[in-house]
Amino acid sequence: MVEEARGRVTAIPVYAKLSSPHFHTAAMDGFAVRSRDTFGAGPDSPILLEIGLNAWPINTGLPIPDSTDAVIMIENVNFLNEVAFEIEKALVPWENVRRVGEDFVASEMILPARHVVTAYEQGALLSGGIYHLQVIEKPRVLLIPTGSELVAPDSLESGDPAPGRVVEFNTIILSGLVENVGGAAVRHPIVPDQFDLIKDAILAGVRSDFHLVVVNAGSSAGSEDYTAAAIRELGEVLVHGVAMMPGKPTILGVVEDKPVIGNPGYPVSSILSFEVFGLPVLEAMQGLPSHCRPTITALTARKIPSKLGREEFFRVKLGKVGDRVIAAPLPRGAGSITTLTRADGIIRIPARTEGIEQAALVKVELLRPSEAIDRTVVIIGSHDLTLDLLADELIPHNLFLSSSHVGSLGGLLALKKRTAHIATSHLLDVKTGLYNWSYIRKYIGDIPVKVIHGVMREQGFIVLKGNPKSIGGFEDLIREDVTFINRQAGAGTRVLLDYHLELAGIDPQQVKGYQMEEYTHTSVAVAVLSGVADVGMGVLAAARALGLDFLPVATEQYDLVIPEEFMNDEKMVTLLEVIRTPAFKKRVLALGGYGVERTGDEIPEPTTM
Amino acid sequence: MVEEARGRVTAIPVYAKLSSPHFHTAAMDGFAVRSRDTFGAGPDSPILLEIGLNAWPINTGLPIPDSTDAVIMIENVNFLNEVAFEIEKALVPWENVRRVGEDFVASEMILPARHVVTAYEQGALLSGGIYHLQVIEKPRVLLIPTGSELVAPDSLESGDPAPGRVVEFNTIILSGLVENVGGAAVRHPIVPDQFDLIKDAILAGVRSDFHLVVVNAGSSAGSEDYTAAAIRELGEVLVHGVAMMPGKPTILGVVEDKPVIGNPGYPVSSILSFEVFGLPVLEAMQGLPSHCRPTITALTARKIPSKLGREEFFRVKLGKVGDRVIAAPLPRGAGSITTLTRADGIIRIPARTEGIEQAALVKVELLRPSEAIDRTVVIIGSHDLTLDLLADELIPHNLFLSSSHVGSLGGLLALKKRTAHIATSHLLDVKTGLYNWSYIRKYIGDIPVKVIHGVMREQGFIVLKGNPKSIGGFEDLIREDVTFINRQAGAGTRVLLDYHLELAGIDPQQVKGYQMEEYTHTSVAVAVLSGVADVGMGVLAAARALGLDFLPVATEQYDLVIPEEFMNDEKMVTLLEVIRTPAFKKRVLALGGYGVERTGDEIPEPTTM
Repeated sequence: MVEEARGRVTAIPVYAKLSSPHFHTAAMDGFAVRSRDTFGAGPDSPILLEIGLNAWPINTGLPIPDSTDAVIMIENVNFLNEVAFEIEKALVPWENVRRVGEDFVASEMILPARHVVTAYEQGALLSGGIYHLQVIEKPRVLLIPTGSELVAPDSLESGDPAPGRVVEFNTIILSGLVENVGGAAVRHPIVPDQFDLIKDAILAGVRSDFHLVVVNAGSSAGSEDYTAAAIRELGEVLVHGVAMMPGKPTILGVVEDKPVIGNPGYPVSSILSFEVFGLPVLEAMQGLPSHCRPTITALTARKIPSKLGREEFFRVKLGKVGDRVIAAPLPRGAGSITTLTRADGIIRIPARTEGIEQAALVKVELLRPSEAIDRTVVIIGSHDLTLDLLADELIPHNLFLSSSHVGSLGGLLALKKRTAHIATSHLLDVKTGLYNWSYIRKYIGDIPVKVIHGVMREQGFIVLKGNPKSIGGFEDLIREDVTFINRQAGAGTRVLLDYHLELAGIDPQQVKGYQMEEYTHTSVAVAVLSGVADVGMGVLAAARALGLDFLPVATEQYDLVIPEEFMNDEKMVTLLEVIRTPAFKKRVLALGGYGVERTGDEIPEPTTM
Repeated sequence: MVEEARGRVTAIPVYAKLSSPHFHTAAMDGFAVRSRDTFGAGPDSPILLEIGLNAWPINTGLPIPDSTDAVIMIENVNFLNEVAFEIEKALVPWENVRRVGEDFVASEMILPARHVVTAYEQGALLSGGIYHLQVIEKPRVLLIPTGSELVAPDSLESGDPAPGRVVEFNTIILSGLVENVGGAAVRHPIVPDQFDLIKDAILAGVRSDFHLVVVNAGSSAGSEDYTAAAIRELGEVLVHGVAMMPGKPTILGVVEDKPVIGNPGYPVSSILSFEVFGLPVLEAMQGLPSHCRPTITALTARKIPSKLGREEFFRVKLGKVGDRVIAAPLPRGAGSITTLTRADGIIRIPARTEGIEQAALVKVELLRPSEAIDRTVVIIGSHDLTLDLLADELIPHNLFLSSSHVGSLGGLLALKKRTAHIATSHLLDVKTGLYNWSYIRKYIGDIPVKVIHGVMREQGFIVLKGNPKSIGGFEDLIREDVTFINRQAGAGTRVLLDYHLELAGIDPQQVKGYQMEEYTHTSVAVAVLSGVADVGMGVLAAARALGLDFLPVATEQYDLVIPEEFMNDEKMVTLLEVIRTPAFKKRVLALGGYGVERTGDEIPEPTTM
């Protein structure tokens, strides 16, 4: 049925069976007439027509009577009585008539074969007398999740997976990808890491009516990776291991003439490998060309090293700063699904290169529409949890936030390199007790900027609930039984730490863990929670979010540094309006440890420095 | 359930409940160890480890034992016996371990509110311990088709609609558009043009659980257009008539606090009006920003006149010729659905202008991805039915054809203006009996071109089945009882006609209907079929497709004229390969009236002209 054909693929070319329109159709409301009866009509020589005699009332879309060949618009007749009217303008033949076949003619091709039907085209098909359509069968894919550590999400109605257990979601993502290219996916129950069970599942799949079987995962060299062995025993392994990263341990095989894919287990590997090897198979089965993501050209925000000998897929954040699109690489961990969900695009670094220099022009495959990139404000600098709230508040304004956490100093340097719209910074000048301005002048020179106050926030020690190591002050950081977790050089929090260590006369080298660096407040908190360290410095909100204790050390000033050239940009104006709203401030206060009295105020440059 | 959340819109921000990973996880297959047990290991100072004592076998993705903090890769151990092995390299703490929260930490925002969930993000949610998601209710839309002339497509299992009846498809298209923005559509049975029935349907709709009611159509001034009156009686008409074209007779109203739209009846008007007024309402109901189509800048292929006082939506074909994207306007008839299905984009001409000049830069909203535009070969010139076959044969090569039928001469002029890749031409030089080359030199000057032979084809008279007017030759065209249908000036078929009229000594002014022009062979055929004319000139295939009779007059040569600069373009190379395939030639022959002996051959320029 054509009614259900949207998104389906035509199996053969479709030719109109009926012309459109298939009868001479009134294009206006009025009266159908013979045009020759109107010849000679003019303002000084009106012609009289009579309903039923030589004029027939008609509405748009209806067939004109056989003998007629034009329609007088209702607006252009002057009624003399109920049945007779005058006209003051002649009609040419076929005026205000949609003639048979005006749109298309029976026998013309409406759609070629192997074409994805749109809603518009359903209309064209129906108006061409096509009520049933021969479409290509949806390729059916069996997705087999394997792994003894896996638990199905629907088995977790209450509570989280036990320690050591992981929620299986790769096949849910793959289902979506399969459906996005017009396939139909079935998720097999989780198969534990047992050779026979995996083998049985593959065999049952290929012997059923599936067109493709995907085993996820068990495709690398671990002691319990049975997929390759199972495929080999049942059929043939064509490829085991591909020169892409993530995605290296991919297996391509054939069992009983059906393709079987052994997909890698890390979520990012699983997705990228399936997009490279699985989706094109499904597209080819439907006679469709392989989908290519749209691309844009961007400038790399920093150097991206890559290993020779494999194609590396880098996830990047994108933002348009001035007239240049900037690509900032995200972490490369294949286990981190958010490196894909947060990504705006993917850079492929060819196998034969060792990486890409900073400020190089690169082709980026877009994961989001380029319009969304244009609507993105790029923030680089110090991390704060209020940035998440800000991102959420900007959505209704059709604005997006891309924030990269590289520390305050990194943010200022990004402004200098013109790779960000805003730097977030809380750099204390210990000589003056003032924040940011002296660093701005030192690191970004004479680029004119405004400083807009963000929030005041409490910094302190983050420790386990109950403070089991009884940490009370900076002097405790040099205790033998205390491990500290630090922030990276250039982070405002690290400047604050160093300042206080100096005040206390402590040599940083005495602090165990001073070399261990994290990039965000929450990472510091999680290092404490998971026993990597006993104490770290960070904001109250990070401690509170993870149920940790917090010992205040100082209140500091967290600001937005914005080049003047962006201040009048509509996106920036909206963003600054949003942070000044009571609604935003209220949400910030609810996090705890923040002050918003002066949020949104401009902080002028001090006159003497 | 997150498993079902793809495409749904988050109602509130979503924060991770679980860190990812939520335990320290082996990132490699190998042995979990305490890193300090490996300090000092080197090629000359291997360190001995023992399974169960200070090393524990582990696979990727599993939790490392509590006391351990690093994983030795299986590749880097040298077994001494079954339980003991040596290593030659020390590990730093947390080497080959994915620490708790490496991807994200419990409490971090995974998704903001009012965000459309992707397959990737389903994975991120599940790994963050989110199994159920609060999503925004799908807006429900009732689509009420009205019109006594309408028949439902599913009532037409056999046979076509009776004369005067039209298949209802607007609500099928609108359903698709509603679903495309995340809404749910219900199609009401067709309501005849009766005031009370329409009123009842609207009232039942707003009193049910629909969020929006759309009446299609009955919104202009016809005697049976009851929609506005019905809305007015039930509630309030806010807007009746908008300054857009197509789409002018749109009605916006409110009944019992629910929005009701009276949508225009012409399919193109119906679609464009609903996209402008309906979809943004559905998006706003979900807290989503209005979707904007991506745009590109293109050059107009010809002048586009437009009326002052209304915004006009022009459908255009796009093609990239050289480095310029060319926009060629399609016919503007709002009743012609193919002006949308064939369109690549839409130009909006503002209400305050009278149109756009030729070769002006315009913003085009894209209906197809710009990658498809790049893969499109632009053909302008003479119409032939084999172009449909060619388009179909190119699909597997991921190539698209945009063909505009403006006659042979129009095609040559397009090459001169550099708005086409190929001109199709069958212009006979009556002095030499040769085709095309003399016209090429006259009309496109010294632009270097190649001429590739397309097909030989029979031209002749197209007449009704049985030839009721007994037309036998050109002398019959001047008979009083015979009406002719002509092709437009510049068409090769018209040149052929004029040549034969001259041979026969007939003054064209004696031919009744000589001034009536059509642009394609099939349009000529349909003019004959529908009684507009008794005879026209065209190709056999057009006559045969509509079951008409055909009297051969001449065999002519139909060629492709291609600027040399495009000859080596990969798209052109593929296209020329395709027309030389036996498969293509076989399909052409099946149409009837064609010769393909020299199809694909180059026709060199004659040395003397």
